[in-house]
Amino acid sequence: MEAAVVEIRDIAGHAGQEVVIQGWLYNLRESGKLLFPLFRDGTGVIQGVVVKAAVPPEVFERVKGLTQESSVRVTGKPRADQRAPGGFELDVSEVEVIQRVPPEHPYPITPKEHGVEFLMDHRHLWLRSARQRAILGVRHEIIKATRDFFDNRGFTLVDTPIFTPAACEGTTTLFEVGYFDEKAYLTQSGQLYNEAAAMAVGKTYCFGPTFRAEKSKTRRHLTEFWMVEPEVAFAHLDDVCKLAEELVASIVEKVLEKRRPELKVLERDVAKLESVKVPFARLRYDDAVKILQEKGSEIQWGGDFGATDETILSEQFDRPVLVTHYPAQVKAFYMATDPERPELALCVDMLAPEGYGEIVGGGERLADYDELLRRVHHEGLPQESFEWYLDLRRYGNVPHAGFGMGIERAVAWICGLDHVRETIPFPRMLYRLKP
Amino acid sequence: MEAAVVEIRDIAGHAGQEVVIQGWLYNLRESGKLLFPLFRDGTGVIQGVVVKAAVPPEVFERVKGLTQESSVRVTGKPRADQRAPGGFELDVSEVEVIQRVPPEHPYPITPKEHGVEFLMDHRHLWLRSARQRAILGVRHEIIKATRDFFDNRGFTLVDTPIFTPAACEGTTTLFEVGYFDEKAYLTQSGQLYNEAAAMAVGKTYCFGPTFRAEKSKTRRHLTEFWMVEPEVAFAHLDDVCKLAEELVASIVEKVLEKRRPELKVLERDVAKLESVKVPFARLRYDDAVKILQEKGSEIQWGGDFGATDETILSEQFDRPVLVTHYPAQVKAFYMATDPERPELALCVDMLAPEGYGEIVGGGERLADYDELLRRVHHEGLPQESFEWYLDLRRYGNVPHAGFGMGIERAVAWICGLDHVRETIPFPRMLYRLKP
Repeated sequence: MEAAVVEIRDIAGHAGQEVVIQGWLYNLRESGKLLFPLFRDGTGVIQGVVVKAAVPPEVFERVKGLTQESSVRVTGKPRADQRAPGGFELDVSEVEVIQRVPPEHPYPITPKEHGVEFLMDHRHLWLRSARQRAILGVRHEIIKATRDFFDNRGFTLVDTPIFTPAACEGTTTLFEVGYFDEKAYLTQSGQLYNEAAAMAVGKTYCFGPTFRAEKSKTRRHLTEFWMVEPEVAFAHLDDVCKLAEELVASIVEKVLEKRRPELKVLERDVAKLESVKVPFARLRYDDAVKILQEKGSEIQWGGDFGATDETILSEQFDRPVLVTHYPAQVKAFYMATDPERPELALCVDMLAPEGYGEIVGGGERLADYDELLRRVHHEGLPQESFEWYLDLRRYGNVPHAGFGMGIERAVAWICGLDHVRETIPFPRMLYRLKP
Repeated sequence: MEAAVVEIRDIAGHAGQEVVIQGWLYNLRESGKLLFPLFRDGTGVIQGVVVKAAVPPEVFERVKGLTQESSVRVTGKPRADQRAPGGFELDVSEVEVIQRVPPEHPYPITPKEHGVEFLMDHRHLWLRSARQRAILGVRHEIIKATRDFFDNRGFTLVDTPIFTPAACEGTTTLFEVGYFDEKAYLTQSGQLYNEAAAMAVGKTYCFGPTFRAEKSKTRRHLTEFWMVEPEVAFAHLDDVCKLAEELVASIVEKVLEKRRPELKVLERDVAKLESVKVPFARLRYDDAVKILQEKGSEIQWGGDFGATDETILSEQFDRPVLVTHYPAQVKAFYMATDPERPELALCVDMLAPEGYGEIVGGGERLADYDELLRRVHHEGLPQESFEWYLDLRRYGNVPHAGFGMGIERAVAWICGLDHVRETIPFPRMLYRLKP
């Protein structure tokens, strides 16, 4: 009987049985008459042991000559070993080489250090590294936890369009596309469409790529990034504050439950994640400004927070903090204002701990038709393009609120990464469109 | 104690209790001293009963004066009634009007017939109709079932980029974007990136919007549509045929399990969906051509199928049919060919029943480096742009296969729709960029 093909993640169920692993050579150590090839198959990594006396000479020579990332089909028996990373080693009996990477053109990414630009140019290969696979796994879990969260609460997914005829918030950071004889812009947010959907299905979310032609080259900016945006009819600011904190807490909980091995590869301090429980800290903008001024920030009431301000604020708490009631002037035109203090928006930003900055932004939407129309004009937006949006206030207007969460910033924080470029499989930035 | 706000879908658990429904007036019937307002809240529809003698006169008059889509907060007691669509009616005691749609500017979509262009111009409101909400619900379920299918089988979601530096298959249907000082193109498929990801994680899928600048105006074409694309290392044609049929069968099963009420609204013949079980029918291109010629098609061996050909083929079976081994010349450059008959591609198209045409396309990828390079040149593609893709054959090349499934075509088929424009919340087509 032929040995069964087994994924490395399932190896524990096959101890002592002959199995076949299909994968790639990740590394190779030699020690006299022993070879220790490290194999990976995308689901895990396992160390093989090849004993010269126990295999035909050609098998030993074949393994000895294997180059990094050569593809192989390995036959062997898994054996429990407490010292092994996955708890098992593989006693190898046969190795079939599918493709041997020629030693004269070796795999370009070696265990030594490489520069960032080099790694980014080889992103299609860099993804194979243990660190990048760990990030991909955590990203997968974050996205799955997010969708499950909304699906389990009766939200309907309503995909909003990528091609939009007009800008949601200003035009300077829009990507323009020739759309037959017209011009279209790539979406920056599904927000306005979400509001239409919320009036149809009550509770909705969209989840897709969004685009910003950011000319700034910082560790927090991508031109293409994914965003989840829920919107709830009949909800107020406090409802979305609760929704946002419950979402983020449930994501962190799921990652801690399912992705401990990945967090270990990333050397993430999980204690910092374990404290992320509801309720999160809450702070009004007024008080945030006072804290910042006490800490030496030059911020004045009325201004928006800079990256340093956000870091200072987030360092005050062991979990994310919800900052509410910003001055309306620094927020988008569709934000509702506080009836008691009309200069304040009924908005919320969630700042991640450890200096990761804003990961959620949202609030209550302006429901009043006349005031919304006034703001459209005030912003210099063409009324005609917003007639459909104004229709939502003409026909069955209700209070409603929502927010957006940037996936890459959440991945950066939860994985503990310095730069968003590693949070997305194929990052797109100011000078980066390849591969 | 104030009555609890309840969603209509949960009404059965609150029979006889005083509850509050938040929503919109969907319709209103009068019958002497009785009013029958139909309320919707996005989760369902319930008929209210207002008895003139049982409520204060102002409540009766308020309801009587309600216009379609006015937003309301309704207090009442749910009462089981077998004749009611959801099994319950609401004995109304109070109605608070949040916004009354003014009778002089009534809601534009009335129960009477409207033209398609009118409805498309009012898509932001049209979504509120029972039929459109039913489609949104089925679409949600199809997407969720798709993601769960791959997640439960150990696939890693790897989002592929929207901005791409070069075309995957030709350039005539690409949307071009100014990307700072460069040009970028909107993705038509995550395929090539998926192959890189499969070498990193073994089994991967991407799921996002894709774009085609289709100048044709047919009932099957959108310029922006969503696609799921799995890719599996070490897989061959037969593996992805099985994967595709299991995916589609599991989607149909989930929709039948969870979305019967929506299918009823859509008047879908569910018997036709109930027969969609694995194994699906399989047919080689050679035999498909013979069937078509017998049925009077003018197709010659070597040509691709037209829409009519696909309809004829799909009518031969009560479930989807997998057509394999097309002539290589009609398939993409990265397709593997049959070693026994090199003029054939190791490819598969799945045709949905009832004339819905191709919903899945895929196959085994060309693994050989030299042959792939030859095809890149043969297609006139710039080698430099494909160096990263060629790297996948240089470093740890393995057999691999995958496919793409268009979500909107799957929605059209499962919902039984005539046109893809209703399958996506905000459709984008040749002359349609708004709202």
